[in-house]
Amino acid sequence: MATVYQHGTLGMLMEGLFAGTITWAEVLKHGDTGIGTLAGLNGEVIVINGEVYQGEASGKVNHITDLSTTTPFATVAFFDENAVAMTLPALYEGGLDRFAEEQQIQNTFALFELHGSFKHVKIRIAPKSEEPYPTLAEVADNQPEFEADEIDGTLLGFFSPALYEGAVVAGWHLHFISDDRTFGGHLLDYTAGDLEGNYQIFDDFNLHLPIQNQAFRDYHQDMQGLAESIRAAEGTAE
Amino acid sequence: MATVYQHGTLGMLMEGLFAGTITWAEVLKHGDTGIGTLAGLNGEVIVINGEVYQGEASGKVNHITDLSTTTPFATVAFFDENAVAMTLPALYEGGLDRFAEEQQIQNTFALFELHGSFKHVKIRIAPKSEEPYPTLAEVADNQPEFEADEIDGTLLGFFSPALYEGAVVAGWHLHFISDDRTFGGHLLDYTAGDLEGNYQIFDDFNLHLPIQNQAFRDYHQDMQGLAESIRAAEGTAE
Repeated sequence: MATVYQHGTLGMLMEGLFAGTITWAEVLKHGDTGIGTLAGLNGEVIVINGEVYQGEASGKVNHITDLSTTTPFATVAFFDENAVAMTLPALYEGGLDRFAEEQQIQNTFALFELHGSFKHVKIRIAPKSEEPYPTLAEVADNQPEFEADEIDGTLLGFFSPALYEGAVVAGWHLHFISDDRTFGGHLLDYTAGDLEGNYQIFDDFNLHLPIQNQAFRDYHQDMQGLAESIRAAEGTAE
Repeated sequence: MATVYQHGTLGMLMEGLFAGTITWAEVLKHGDTGIGTLAGLNGEVIVINGEVYQGEASGKVNHITDLSTTTPFATVAFFDENAVAMTLPALYEGGLDRFAEEQQIQNTFALFELHGSFKHVKIRIAPKSEEPYPTLAEVADNQPEFEADEIDGTLLGFFSPALYEGAVVAGWHLHFISDDRTFGGHLLDYTAGDLEGNYQIFDDFNLHLPIQNQAFRDYHQDMQGLAESIRAAEGTAE
């Protein structure tokens, strides 16, 4: 009974519901590994070994130690006895896509955490928005990107089946953080040496919704063109 | 922390994954009220007060007391202290759709259980399929329908937001069972007197997937036209 826990939906972010509706203290009860953002869609969060780091749009990485800090969106899990050690060799053609295909995880939620030496990393960081919040598509037009060469670090995040797109980011949703915790964000592209770490598939997906939040209760999801907007707004690493 | 628990997905059923992958004993741990089917897409299940009833395609209703009976798909929940008593008056124009709009539940998972005297009820019952299983669209072309007049009973089921279509049946997914437990199935249409009962919204949606089932691991979801197929295959009451 391993569970992926997600607070909020991609659909909400698409519509500009960026208010913080859960604390990181609460999120961490459901996982010590994962990804997210902060209230106002303020940057890219990576949760690693139970520690919360935020890549902000300046390019700086902040260690979030005040866990009363809130977020509109987070996805976390615990690795457990079902975690599988894996190596992604530098010369393994097809990378994570091929690995996922070989492992037949196309219909499952999976968590990946892979560490190693990266020859090149390209990340993107959502800039903090102020109320009244823009849509995710509007934010996406204005997101700084950063690149680094010869950097040790970890790529970490989830694979989710296409069936759940809209609720989640379908396919890969990976963030990156350097070993020295000074460079991190939403992973757009990379080349790397051998990567080593763990992955796990999950039989339970627990979606937690902010049903007491008035903006959540009020809003109307624009289903028309949701898929296209997601494609436009969400760069993926693979 | 009220939770809707669902085993399996509508997407799986669309692709003909009708094998029983969970027992009703296990499902009932997560709710005493809800809907589902049996292995082979054998009929329409309604769970009421913790009892499992199956409307089968002959029109007969069976009380399922052997809880080792399995299902590919079930959605259940417990009403708790957040349940709200409600009346749906016979003359209330717009019915459940208007009620849902007034209560602003468009973005939430909600459970409804409403009892009363029905002037007319029309139901549909999926016939049992044998392996190799057909797709849901193929089954949908061959589903018997039944009608009853002046019948006391309960309509029961879920409202789910459009965002989750494919994982769930978006909108209304309601089943009906008569008080004497002899008439029941997937609710297509009704006219009724005053209906009284409860509804509840949920902050947690727990999707449980049969990740140890080889057919589940193997299959490829046809996302193209999924929405259209769902529309064609799933009649709804509202």
